[in-house]
Amino acid sequence: MIGCPFKIQLGDIMDIIYMKEALKEASIAYSTYEVPIGAVIVYDGQIIGRGYNKKEKLKNPLAHAELIAIDQATKYLGQWRLTACTMYVTLEPCAMCAGALINSRIDRLVIGARDQRMGCAGTVENITCHDKFNHKIQVEHGVLEEECSSILSDFFKMLRSKR
Amino acid sequence: MIGCPFKIQLGDIMDIIYMKEALKEASIAYSTYEVPIGAVIVYDGQIIGRGYNKKEKLKNPLAHAELIAIDQATKYLGQWRLTACTMYVTLEPCAMCAGALINSRIDRLVIGARDQRMGCAGTVENITCHDKFNHKIQVEHGVLEEECSSILSDFFKMLRSKR
Repeated sequence: MIGCPFKIQLGDIMDIIYMKEALKEASIAYSTYEVPIGAVIVYDGQIIGRGYNKKEKLKNPLAHAELIAIDQATKYLGQWRLTACTMYVTLEPCAMCAGALINSRIDRLVIGARDQRMGCAGTVENITCHDKFNHKIQVEHGVLEEECSSILSDFFKMLRSKR
Repeated sequence: MIGCPFKIQLGDIMDIIYMKEALKEASIAYSTYEVPIGAVIVYDGQIIGRGYNKKEKLKNPLAHAELIAIDQATKYLGQWRLTACTMYVTLEPCAMCAGALINSRIDRLVIGARDQRMGCAGTVENITCHDKFNHKIQVEHGVLEEECSSILSDFFKMLRSKR
């Protein structure tokens, strides 16, 4: 049997489209002087949760892009389970956000850039696909990696030039 | 130089007093048919954050006792850092909550019962004191362990008897 290359390409194109939406969220964070990280959650072809990092604005260590998007998506669906959903996030989730994704039972996680310091979807730790936990997430790295990485390095360069 | 045994005992007594407060929170969860887990955050001898598990009530996977208490404490202090604070929690935090504690830069974490399935303060994983992360928390296990463990086993026994 011959596989269908079109289907695979369509999946890739959709991943890029949704990662661009996550990048839009990251840009809002950038413009408000927050570390530019953005996330969206997709269910049945529709974005049902969006978030960008608001840690400094809200003075709250929980206000990461991923948690804000999860909160919105669960409210939209009216349940705590995000089964059959995919999160697109510009930077690999930290332990808190990776743990929140496990708790939400999300199916799939698509990541832009790796986080070499705090990344818990395979880089420093692997919370999203852990042998002993009761849920494992299908994880993909490297979608629009350069753009997701550049927005962060540009941000820190801008901050240094302002000081 | 001879150490002061009174000081050590006073610390232990305070830990028990605050863990009893966390158990009060867990009892509220029990009475609302939520898995009974409770947490309090103490700063300068005062409880500045309290929380109990509300996952089912709020239909939200983020509504763990620890996150609710962190949210309250940061609002009280008007900053995202919980330096010089201690969290008392009846059950060992999961990855999400352990990660949130790291993100909040909390000093100390006192735990009642261990969580053999999802515990990320040394039992399944060690997020709270990880070699590579930028913050390490002083963790103590086993304060009022029997009470903290019993309230959970009683709850699940009650649920089974109702079915």
